[in-house]
Amino acid sequence: MKLLSALVLSLISFVSLADDGSRLWLKYDLIQDEAYRKSVQKAFRQIIVLDQTETTQVAADELQKALSGFTGKTISINNSPANKSIVLKLGSDPRIQKNEGFTISSTSKGAEIISPSDEGLLYGAFALIRRIQTGQSLDFELAESPKVQVRMLNHWDNANGTVERGYAGSSIWKWFELPYRIDPRYIEYARANASIGINAASINNVNASSRFLTAEYLEKIKAVADVLRPYGIKVFISVNFRSPRTLGGLETSDPLDPGVRQWWKYKTEEIHRYIPDFGGYLVKANSEGEPGPQDYGRTHADGANMLADAMKGHEGVVIWRAFVYEADPNGDRFKEAFNQFKPLDGTFHPKVIVQVKNGPIDFMPREPFHPMFGVFPKTPLAMEFQITQEYLGHSTHLTYLAPMFEEVLDSDTYAKGEGSTVGKVIDGSLNNYQVTVMAGVANTGSDANWTGHPFGQSNWYAFGRLAWDHTLSSEQIAEEWTKMTLTKKPKAVKEVVDLMMKSHPTYVKYTYPLGLAHMMGEGHHYGPQPWLEKSGRPDWTSVYYHRTAKDGIGFDRTGGMSDALSLYSPDVQKAWGDPQTMDLNYLLWFHHLDWDYELPTGKTVWNELMTRYYQGVDEVEELQKQWNSLKPYIDQEIFENVKGRLAIQHKEALWWRDSCYLYFKQFSEKPLPVGLEEPKRTLEDVKELEHIYHLR
Amino acid sequence: MKLLSALVLSLISFVSLADDGSRLWLKYDLIQDEAYRKSVQKAFRQIIVLDQTETTQVAADELQKALSGFTGKTISINNSPANKSIVLKLGSDPRIQKNEGFTISSTSKGAEIISPSDEGLLYGAFALIRRIQTGQSLDFELAESPKVQVRMLNHWDNANGTVERGYAGSSIWKWFELPYRIDPRYIEYARANASIGINAASINNVNASSRFLTAEYLEKIKAVADVLRPYGIKVFISVNFRSPRTLGGLETSDPLDPGVRQWWKYKTEEIHRYIPDFGGYLVKANSEGEPGPQDYGRTHADGANMLADAMKGHEGVVIWRAFVYEADPNGDRFKEAFNQFKPLDGTFHPKVIVQVKNGPIDFMPREPFHPMFGVFPKTPLAMEFQITQEYLGHSTHLTYLAPMFEEVLDSDTYAKGEGSTVGKVIDGSLNNYQVTVMAGVANTGSDANWTGHPFGQSNWYAFGRLAWDHTLSSEQIAEEWTKMTLTKKPKAVKEVVDLMMKSHPTYVKYTYPLGLAHMMGEGHHYGPQPWLEKSGRPDWTSVYYHRTAKDGIGFDRTGGMSDALSLYSPDVQKAWGDPQTMDLNYLLWFHHLDWDYELPTGKTVWNELMTRYYQGVDEVEELQKQWNSLKPYIDQEIFENVKGRLAIQHKEALWWRDSCYLYFKQFSEKPLPVGLEEPKRTLEDVKELEHIYHLR
Repeated sequence: MKLLSALVLSLISFVSLADDGSRLWLKYDLIQDEAYRKSVQKAFRQIIVLDQTETTQVAADELQKALSGFTGKTISINNSPANKSIVLKLGSDPRIQKNEGFTISSTSKGAEIISPSDEGLLYGAFALIRRIQTGQSLDFELAESPKVQVRMLNHWDNANGTVERGYAGSSIWKWFELPYRIDPRYIEYARANASIGINAASINNVNASSRFLTAEYLEKIKAVADVLRPYGIKVFISVNFRSPRTLGGLETSDPLDPGVRQWWKYKTEEIHRYIPDFGGYLVKANSEGEPGPQDYGRTHADGANMLADAMKGHEGVVIWRAFVYEADPNGDRFKEAFNQFKPLDGTFHPKVIVQVKNGPIDFMPREPFHPMFGVFPKTPLAMEFQITQEYLGHSTHLTYLAPMFEEVLDSDTYAKGEGSTVGKVIDGSLNNYQVTVMAGVANTGSDANWTGHPFGQSNWYAFGRLAWDHTLSSEQIAEEWTKMTLTKKPKAVKEVVDLMMKSHPTYVKYTYPLGLAHMMGEGHHYGPQPWLEKSGRPDWTSVYYHRTAKDGIGFDRTGGMSDALSLYSPDVQKAWGDPQTMDLNYLLWFHHLDWDYELPTGKTVWNELMTRYYQGVDEVEELQKQWNSLKPYIDQEIFENVKGRLAIQHKEALWWRDSCYLYFKQFSEKPLPVGLEEPKRTLEDVKELEHIYHLR
Repeated sequence: MKLLSALVLSLISFVSLADDGSRLWLKYDLIQDEAYRKSVQKAFRQIIVLDQTETTQVAADELQKALSGFTGKTISINNSPANKSIVLKLGSDPRIQKNEGFTISSTSKGAEIISPSDEGLLYGAFALIRRIQTGQSLDFELAESPKVQVRMLNHWDNANGTVERGYAGSSIWKWFELPYRIDPRYIEYARANASIGINAASINNVNASSRFLTAEYLEKIKAVADVLRPYGIKVFISVNFRSPRTLGGLETSDPLDPGVRQWWKYKTEEIHRYIPDFGGYLVKANSEGEPGPQDYGRTHADGANMLADAMKGHEGVVIWRAFVYEADPNGDRFKEAFNQFKPLDGTFHPKVIVQVKNGPIDFMPREPFHPMFGVFPKTPLAMEFQITQEYLGHSTHLTYLAPMFEEVLDSDTYAKGEGSTVGKVIDGSLNNYQVTVMAGVANTGSDANWTGHPFGQSNWYAFGRLAWDHTLSSEQIAEEWTKMTLTKKPKAVKEVVDLMMKSHPTYVKYTYPLGLAHMMGEGHHYGPQPWLEKSGRPDWTSVYYHRTAKDGIGFDRTGGMSDALSLYSPDVQKAWGDPQTMDLNYLLWFHHLDWDYELPTGKTVWNELMTRYYQGVDEVEELQKQWNSLKPYIDQEIFENVKGRLAIQHKEALWWRDSCYLYFKQFSEKPLPVGLEEPKRTLEDVKELEHIYHLR
């Protein structure tokens, strides 16, 4: 026994010293608070499954795993009722609004989870686990239903294993091993998603390879679908619109061509033979060089409706992306999706959902909500958020994105008067959509901790929670995640949440203050490159966006350069039309202002801009100090990991600040506001630094 | 205590059920054999370090970690002599031939490790650990010295995190996190290498980005070098020959230009300010489109010598790759490196080593040894093996490569009469080289288990062991690795070793029997494509190599198509010149033979070829059965992992067999030998399958 103890202790220290983050927020460690642990132990002595399905089995296993971990005692699973149990029961309750909803009635003598569906029971199980994991009272009543039907991750994962805009290793999908080898991480992935209510995943990049529609690959995708199914997750495939030519040997991919339509019909039937509950297609068409119906003089509706027709008789849907824009140097990319899609409202097949990015450009760190939201009464619009931090610091910056997601979801479109929020557009309540979707571009990769930056996990978590219920607050989500993932010490939780809540505003300050956008390094999107003047397309440069000149900075969208503001409802136009009263975070998205223009802050545009850049860097230093103070409360490996990344973030924040100051100063010809210290380097220095990252 | 036990048991089961392979062969688990465990406990009660350096500290820590794990008791580290200790002592011993060598005197009352260098003590520590880990007697005397000085991994890792020919996730080097975050895996990597004697690593792809020579990146590389240094590992950088233009702004990179020479001199000095013990440069020049001295009418020697001059006053060396060939449809790639380099022998700077791939083409599954070996008396030649399985099944085929490495190292060049083996060329004993190098292209990646296929780890292990001592047998290495990594049960060890030893011959049978080569899928090198007739260059096709026609198959290198055999010594020419007496494994490398030509096996070429293809597939089925029988002895996760991959291997072996049979049959117009079953698919089917993997 002595030997065993020694071994045990070394194992414990091994486990606790080496938190590599692979367990995400699903950490079912022994509850440290003895009284609470005992109350959990007493209340829940077994798990009762009344309706045996693959999914209820998963729910029971998860409860067993969690409670055994929490209490240090193995909890059994049975199928006949008993006291002090957790009972999983298919059934109805007037408080449950949707099939995936559930209720939990919990006391110190057991809990009952009820749902009309076994997926609902699984979500209920995870909700109960979350309650316990975050140390809440066992005496409660809970009724939840998801606000959005399809809660989805979009993987931009390529067939060769790379991930477009991935910063955490390679793809989690091992296509060369499938279908014969099932990586145990697929199951961990499914658990993690189910725990936050995600019920759909498109498994390949929207810049899609036709490869995924071949029998060879459908067999592989089937193997993935079979793993994900018991966790309530449906698989979607991103399709290449040229597939009838590439794979079918047809001479066209014209969506009105009978042969093409037939090909998609057959292909869709074939997919269903592998995956009977196939989620559907995700399509990037006529966008950034991808093929699409416009290649044949057809509309997006022609293309989408053809695929929807092919889906006839099946549950699946067609998610068609609105991320389209043309390379017009005199145009305004801001307006293009709106202009292309608005005339099509009312012409889409009922199975088609149009997926719109949160803002009109491309996942910039802060964008005004997309003008399409609210004004497509006849076309269900899906929200596309980006969880992976393409423009938000990759995996080296700590940027908690929930406040940004929340800002968009809470934005008021005024489409049907005050309170017509984007959230209500997405959940279908504003326009009575029959299908509702919220998608997030995944930040998952093959790295042990899934997301590279340990705080990247919180963005995956927050996306799922908000897709389930967009009225949850960012703070609440941050608090849940922190308690489940990092620490349960109240003081430390408070600090971590505070740090998370500050992180996005800080990031915006040192990169894109006052509504600047799109000044990152070309192609790789790493580091600042505000001087970028030439690229493959004018709307891939930086100068296209900031419009900096001797006379000032910003993109006038109030009529001069572009009348994009007019795409919004009159109330929004009013709110954003006047620099003196508007939210300054969107200022330069809509106004081109003289460097000396005085803002309501009392500062000129130049001084306000520079002050924010400098504040951003100072705030990173604050984040560093705050994190350092948390050392006693955080696992050592995670602590050092985040500490190292914060040091990089600080270096890069300085890089952004110095680059933007030195570049803009050429136009403003103004000094830094009093008290701000001149950078130690020149514009040439920072240009050279950016250049390094463009070397092959 | 009861609670603790439950916890402990769950931890133990957690650990033992989930061997993700991340610990490689460094598994310091409790010794199960109680008597042996007690004898280890009694013999080694503490670790005594007499000479405190960073490296002896690492050695002591490793011994502590290992012995504490083996015995379940914490072993202390002290610095004053005592009984029953492991003593690490700097000193000399007549049996130690090289600075990194060591002796171990071990009895049941303690052990003493002596070396003239602290690296030698580290190697000694690992040797003692290996002895214990493989369950050998504690009573022994050991004296070892490495046969080769620079034992090196070549990482083909790109700046963007991808790995050229990597099949285990992305790069282990996190360039965007360095220098501020030190991934704990760098230390694991260093430990693993030190444990097998690897003392050098070139950290970036030979298709090199200039980025690695900028101050920004040198700071990152310095951080890596600082981690690796205590483990005795020196860092090399692969350089882009055009760097003086790309980075220095010069108008030329001509190695005879004084400005260029000055630039490299300064750059080399700068590197040494970051990394005082810099290993040196690795160069791929004028090869497959890379820049080089020939761009300016200069020779490889001009280029290499310039870099060597720049290294003056430092320990570093210049490793110049001989992998060069021209796209001549009427030439023979087999001869090109020889012809370009032979005239240069004697003209290289003493700091230059020419690195030659094991065979004349490109890491084919079985190649005759490179004709350069043995005939460069004045130029040290380094061996370049490929550990990553570019042509050997990526990470889906179980292919233990040590027998292949051994076959090359044991090949007799006859350069100075019988016994002039390639091994003696490489270890310098044949030509009295002053610097000796063996390099292996790494198979490491960011996946938890480092190498994708669990057996990929054995190839990393075997490379290191052979670089240390090329006279070790493949069986011995396989046995060591198996005991350390998979199982210690004698019966199971025997089966695993048997399976490993059969694996390479089996792979060759179903892909490239009788000396065929280079018929893999274009570009990605996945799957068979013997029909490939057109590519960017003639010597990138398949038909260039197999020369299949109505009249037979094979590349005549005995004078007709090419006289490449004449590059070898007369004894080798004699051995390989006659199809009736030669090793049939090299047959079609040198002979173009009629399909009906009767081989000494009694079969015609056609029948022998087809018999081998079919045997290969049958043998994979045998491997599968053999592996299945090992289930009780192998960790469940590893067992399932390998089982899944063997199923893929079987599918792909069939794919190779069917593709080659169906393709070659068009020319031979012959039936399969009696008893072999016709494939169920057509040539079109297998072509289509290969085509899928070429879709974007």
